[in-house]
Amino acid sequence: MAGGYELLKSGGDGEVQSPKSYRTARRIAIGLVACLALVTLSFLHIHPPLSVDLGAQDNHDGDSVKACASPAPPAARPPAPINPWASLTIEQTVQIQKWLEEPAQALNLTRGAISKPSDNHIFLIEAYYPPKASVLRYFSSLSSSDIPEKYARVTIHHGSAPEPVIKDYLVGPLPIGSSTRMEHLTDIYHLDAIPHNARGFDTRDWTTPEIFEKMAAPLMEAYEELLGGTPQGTLITAGSGPFSFDGSFRRLWLSWRRSTPGFFLHPLNLYQYIDLSGTDPSQWDQLKIVYNHQVFNSPEAFMEAFHNGSLKRVPVIDPDTDLSYSTRKRIGAQRDLDHLPGPRSVSFAGLRFRVDHDLQYVSWMGWGLYLGFDRDMGLSLWDINFRGERIVYELKPQEALAQYAGNDPFQATTAWLDRYFGMGQSVRDMLPGYDCPHEAVYLPATTYSVNGLSTQQRAICIFEHDSGRPLSRHLGFEENEFGAVKGYELVIRSIATVGKFMITFDYIFHLDGTIEVRISASGYLQAGYYDNTQGQYGNRIWETSMGSLHDHVINYKVDLDVAGTANSLLKTTLSQESVTQPWFEEDWGDEVIQQVVTREYIDDENDALLKFPTNFQGGYAIVNQEETNKWGTSRGYAIHPGYSPIHNTVVGSKRLMKNANWARYNLAVSRRKETEPSSSSMWNFNLPGSPPVDFHKFFDGENITQEDLVAWVNLGMHHLPQSEDAPNTRTNTATSSFFLTPLNYFDHDVSIESTNAVLLKNPEKPGNPFTYDDYGVEPAHCLPEQPSPFEYHPAKMFDLDGRPAPASSIEDMRKASELYHRIKLEL
Amino acid sequence: MAGGYELLKSGGDGEVQSPKSYRTARRIAIGLVACLALVTLSFLHIHPPLSVDLGAQDNHDGDSVKACASPAPPAARPPAPINPWASLTIEQTVQIQKWLEEPAQALNLTRGAISKPSDNHIFLIEAYYPPKASVLRYFSSLSSSDIPEKYARVTIHHGSAPEPVIKDYLVGPLPIGSSTRMEHLTDIYHLDAIPHNARGFDTRDWTTPEIFEKMAAPLMEAYEELLGGTPQGTLITAGSGPFSFDGSFRRLWLSWRRSTPGFFLHPLNLYQYIDLSGTDPSQWDQLKIVYNHQVFNSPEAFMEAFHNGSLKRVPVIDPDTDLSYSTRKRIGAQRDLDHLPGPRSVSFAGLRFRVDHDLQYVSWMGWGLYLGFDRDMGLSLWDINFRGERIVYELKPQEALAQYAGNDPFQATTAWLDRYFGMGQSVRDMLPGYDCPHEAVYLPATTYSVNGLSTQQRAICIFEHDSGRPLSRHLGFEENEFGAVKGYELVIRSIATVGKFMITFDYIFHLDGTIEVRISASGYLQAGYYDNTQGQYGNRIWETSMGSLHDHVINYKVDLDVAGTANSLLKTTLSQESVTQPWFEEDWGDEVIQQVVTREYIDDENDALLKFPTNFQGGYAIVNQEETNKWGTSRGYAIHPGYSPIHNTVVGSKRLMKNANWARYNLAVSRRKETEPSSSSMWNFNLPGSPPVDFHKFFDGENITQEDLVAWVNLGMHHLPQSEDAPNTRTNTATSSFFLTPLNYFDHDVSIESTNAVLLKNPEKPGNPFTYDDYGVEPAHCLPEQPSPFEYHPAKMFDLDGRPAPASSIEDMRKASELYHRIKLEL
Repeated sequence: MAGGYELLKSGGDGEVQSPKSYRTARRIAIGLVACLALVTLSFLHIHPPLSVDLGAQDNHDGDSVKACASPAPPAARPPAPINPWASLTIEQTVQIQKWLEEPAQALNLTRGAISKPSDNHIFLIEAYYPPKASVLRYFSSLSSSDIPEKYARVTIHHGSAPEPVIKDYLVGPLPIGSSTRMEHLTDIYHLDAIPHNARGFDTRDWTTPEIFEKMAAPLMEAYEELLGGTPQGTLITAGSGPFSFDGSFRRLWLSWRRSTPGFFLHPLNLYQYIDLSGTDPSQWDQLKIVYNHQVFNSPEAFMEAFHNGSLKRVPVIDPDTDLSYSTRKRIGAQRDLDHLPGPRSVSFAGLRFRVDHDLQYVSWMGWGLYLGFDRDMGLSLWDINFRGERIVYELKPQEALAQYAGNDPFQATTAWLDRYFGMGQSVRDMLPGYDCPHEAVYLPATTYSVNGLSTQQRAICIFEHDSGRPLSRHLGFEENEFGAVKGYELVIRSIATVGKFMITFDYIFHLDGTIEVRISASGYLQAGYYDNTQGQYGNRIWETSMGSLHDHVINYKVDLDVAGTANSLLKTTLSQESVTQPWFEEDWGDEVIQQVVTREYIDDENDALLKFPTNFQGGYAIVNQEETNKWGTSRGYAIHPGYSPIHNTVVGSKRLMKNANWARYNLAVSRRKETEPSSSSMWNFNLPGSPPVDFHKFFDGENITQEDLVAWVNLGMHHLPQSEDAPNTRTNTATSSFFLTPLNYFDHDVSIESTNAVLLKNPEKPGNPFTYDDYGVEPAHCLPEQPSPFEYHPAKMFDLDGRPAPASSIEDMRKASELYHRIKLEL
Repeated sequence: MAGGYELLKSGGDGEVQSPKSYRTARRIAIGLVACLALVTLSFLHIHPPLSVDLGAQDNHDGDSVKACASPAPPAARPPAPINPWASLTIEQTVQIQKWLEEPAQALNLTRGAISKPSDNHIFLIEAYYPPKASVLRYFSSLSSSDIPEKYARVTIHHGSAPEPVIKDYLVGPLPIGSSTRMEHLTDIYHLDAIPHNARGFDTRDWTTPEIFEKMAAPLMEAYEELLGGTPQGTLITAGSGPFSFDGSFRRLWLSWRRSTPGFFLHPLNLYQYIDLSGTDPSQWDQLKIVYNHQVFNSPEAFMEAFHNGSLKRVPVIDPDTDLSYSTRKRIGAQRDLDHLPGPRSVSFAGLRFRVDHDLQYVSWMGWGLYLGFDRDMGLSLWDINFRGERIVYELKPQEALAQYAGNDPFQATTAWLDRYFGMGQSVRDMLPGYDCPHEAVYLPATTYSVNGLSTQQRAICIFEHDSGRPLSRHLGFEENEFGAVKGYELVIRSIATVGKFMITFDYIFHLDGTIEVRISASGYLQAGYYDNTQGQYGNRIWETSMGSLHDHVINYKVDLDVAGTANSLLKTTLSQESVTQPWFEEDWGDEVIQQVVTREYIDDENDALLKFPTNFQGGYAIVNQEETNKWGTSRGYAIHPGYSPIHNTVVGSKRLMKNANWARYNLAVSRRKETEPSSSSMWNFNLPGSPPVDFHKFFDGENITQEDLVAWVNLGMHHLPQSEDAPNTRTNTATSSFFLTPLNYFDHDVSIESTNAVLLKNPEKPGNPFTYDDYGVEPAHCLPEQPSPFEYHPAKMFDLDGRPAPASSIEDMRKASELYHRIKLEL
């Protein structure tokens, strides 16, 4: 194909056109025939041929305008007939569930939905990813005997054990058969067993009758008078976290809010510290009550002050107050021309990316990759190839930290690690046409929970996007200097809404081998109660509400394989030097101060906990010292900062003592190990003092020169909220990104291969238009299919036997979505 | 209009549809009538009505598919019938030119095109912007008597003066009349007069016969043998800069390159230091020759070494070597599906932004602004209003620095300030469909040069862009919680190619009041000659070529007016604190380490030379302390870093001693003054020791509390080039941006006003689809106009009498574009 793009066209004239008289006659004939045909077809209600005559419609290139190509993606050609990272099917999951429930396994299981804390139950069943070595072996042989064995990871809450405990098991090989075994999975954790007090998220804990009786019932009168409502009526409550330091207790602050749309922005100033330790709810109790900065050690003490007049009160707001500021209800005048739909991106000639829906494999312009999806963090990308070479083996978010500050017990003690809540489980269908362009292609994802299996049909979207600027471009007058390559990108997206706020996870592929990893946040703030003691922790956003200062840090595992798995960590530093040269003249002096590069390989893992240099003078790359490009430079991929390249502000907080140490850096690089698959775990949240995954333990002085390396890269933002965060945070400034981008990896910029490009040639005669080569790629002129009407359906549910379950009630959908950020206490 | 968006539609069913029989009958009737009409129209060759029947084409909403609305922008409604920042018309310019040439003015002028350095000539005539006070007065009264007087700025090279000098003059009021005066413009400069040795860019200096005779002729034999060519044949040369420290001399290094497409990437290792001081070319001389690190003080000494065998030579490359790596000629296999055009953005229902072509006024979604354009820096934005309030009075690039490093005399001594070359004058027409989407609207710009006036018809493009992600979004199950606002943006763009490299200047307007200011770089590197002494100054990119380390820093003037002109500079800092609270329990200890905000107003200009804090813990905003939002917070606009928020690495270089001190910071804030309109001037480049605009002099201890302020904000990148910079740098990573974004400016996020948005409502019955409100805005289904065929025309030229000039020759276009980066020496 190379060499076939030499045809130059005149930009302005010289196109051969039919003489006018011929065109006119032809129009009449075609028009009449088409009319008769259309009328007939219309009557018979048969679909017409694709070519439809528009008669006298004045087109540049003829008389006939066709319907555009199908908006369905062409079939992909995955490198292998399996996806080694595929989620378990519902059938596989059910089979495992049943096998676990067999008496032979002696697990004494109660089905999750009806289990009590003191029961044993299965918390999670999902695919466990195969070892990299076995995948690489299979991908290089493609022999079916090399297909990696499939295993499941099963998490069981052993509530009935004498010392209640949580255990992870490996179950396999799958499918279940005589060789299937169950093995305690410990080698990926730094704890032998997970304390039961740190167990996975379970809504039912907050809705046991004991919570209402012990914590709420004694305060009913106060709720009504001080907060203007009741837990059964216009109030709801929410829990903070973490619950524990080391698993020896399970305690949290409840914060009261108005039960109104956007309740996250309606905190009230009453807080209750409750103890839910152990498996016996009758032992649960409340330890403290704080109202308007006054502290009480028991409900009795509080109620006494309430009754005897010593309680310093704040006014209750008028019940008629308009609370709609916290909703997305449209207000204000319509903007000029906003009654028209904005521009829409259409692939008139058909989609240019390929999708294998079953294998969840995607390819586009030399890129090819598999998708994975799990409960903890949702979408992950695997075996990312570009132009026939593996660039990234694994690209996967690991954890999302949000640490708050404030002058109240709730904000001051909150340090979320959202993996606990299941960011994958928090993914819901995207809004077609709003979350992704109309022509996006969607892929489903299924996750397991104690309540059954849930399938989101539009968990992931894929679309090609015109960045709106050329990727490369020059204006020049020598031959072959003047032209541009269009800046097309492929976007793979998933959106997780974890209670109040949402993160859009984007993976953006560029034509030059660059991958942009980007997050965009929106949704609600976790607002604090505003009074004049709060100014140094945020901004007031409503009468009695404030946006509380917090940091978001999101960690990614980036397993780059640069020209193979033997890689090194290159640190580049830019600084200034003063040099003298024999050729300097006295006019400028004999000294020049200029910039200089220093390059060093970081050999010791312990030196690979990294921050970006001041003023970004330098950076980090994964390179293969043994593989060079044509010019003798080691081939590499740089980790290039994008928007908001930050790390966590606070160091030393007890609530993040050891469970999120990755957040202290911009990135870190460690030797890749099957025993270090992730920088966090769902239990890290509640075990800051002794986390199951202690990131710093990855860094134990090993040599990282020409080894298989993993970069742990952070995105995030310091969020000092402002009035414009209501109702929802705006993604344009709440965004963070990094680039994985070739660094002397190729001999030249390979995006020059693109044929969605133009090359201009000087006119022969001054004043004439330039001639040009567009490589035969021109805008298609056709009638695009009408976008489907907007539709949004609840998730498909299946019970733990794999049978379609009745549709969730709104209240169940709400609970599953709002987690324990909205606890409706009921007797 | 508010309140009119309550209509909820079923997502899945319930739409009232015509019964099938009725529809079929209607189809036949409409079809037949339309057919007859079309045939008739076709015969008469009259344009048909917009509605064209597609007969039985299966559409969702009816039978008729129309041609889409016109892609022309609707007319704008500027706030005033004039653009106070409009460029001079060609007629105005010619009138001034002729007036200046009148004997009464006694300027002894020679027309630029034929003038010698020892003559007086006009270098520049362009509009001088009116004082802000007079513009604000006019905009508030709109009385024609308040229209600001129009003045021109005229730059004259006084080459024939006993002490040759450059002077700027104010000429006005315009039009020329009895009251028109000419006045030496000095109050905006820190120098009384500009030394003639630092005069504006003039190609003719490098092509005088003296250059060839003195510098090149003696070396002809060496060129041929050492470099493999001759200056008349396969070699070209290029000059470095700056030329002078304080105007006492005018010297530069010439570097030789192969004369081949992409010659910027073909340096050779011969350098000549030449002296062009004064106005008498016969006095010009060469001072040094450097070849392969060997230094010679005269051509004779060099040629002697050349002949006597003592010269240490490097091999000459084979004349048959393929040099095409430096071209944009497509190579490599075509990517999968790249024979199809990528997605195209179409405003099916018509463009949603308004443009006044004559006044150069643009409005979109509550935004309105005027455009300006000048020789030095090109596009500028004025009087930017949003929702009826002025946000920015002036937004204008000021200067573009590029400082190089290397182990050769050329790279080591280069510190470009591109204003010298005229970044506005370097703007050329954009490539429709490649530089801007097909439906972009273009505006022209005209600049003056000694060779005449040049009009670029497509100097500026404007288009609406779908960012591809929602601006805000939430998933929730309370009423009015679940929905999204589409992330539309308006982009205003201009591209300047200054010799080798190009900058895309983008101004991106968002629905929430945010303006993103972004640059993207592409084009050629200024490559260095690669040998093994060069590694610490870059990367090798070809056999004997390297990408040389350099910094780009681009300065912007941002004259924010936040709720009026009385503004203050707010510095916010995020740090950590350790606090104890009465409500902490012993479980976690009595101390919490958390984040905290400190806010301070910087009162003294001298303290307002600013860098972003480490880890971006805090930031800067312009706020009005006397105007608060509904929640009592001072209204502000933040200057929020985006991509690559850097400042210059090198401090103290003599070549940037005092002429670009703005580049030392991320931003700086000074009191706005008519005498400090800009942070630089075209002459700053050649006067680092005594610059006409000395930025540090703006900072003279004045109080900046509740004053009219200007923020001087930098973008840029540290560019350590790599093999992938050939042939051209890629815009995706060569980009930098900042945001001007509301900070407690509004009471809430005003983008909630958008009707290109959706709001979902829970289904009544579990399992049903959600109902929704799309505010009546749905995708339009119609046949878009076919994009115009690609066309590219040379600029329109006018002579200094305003008459259309013959089209430029390719060689003239090339010279004007390549500046003195490509000097073709001819005898």
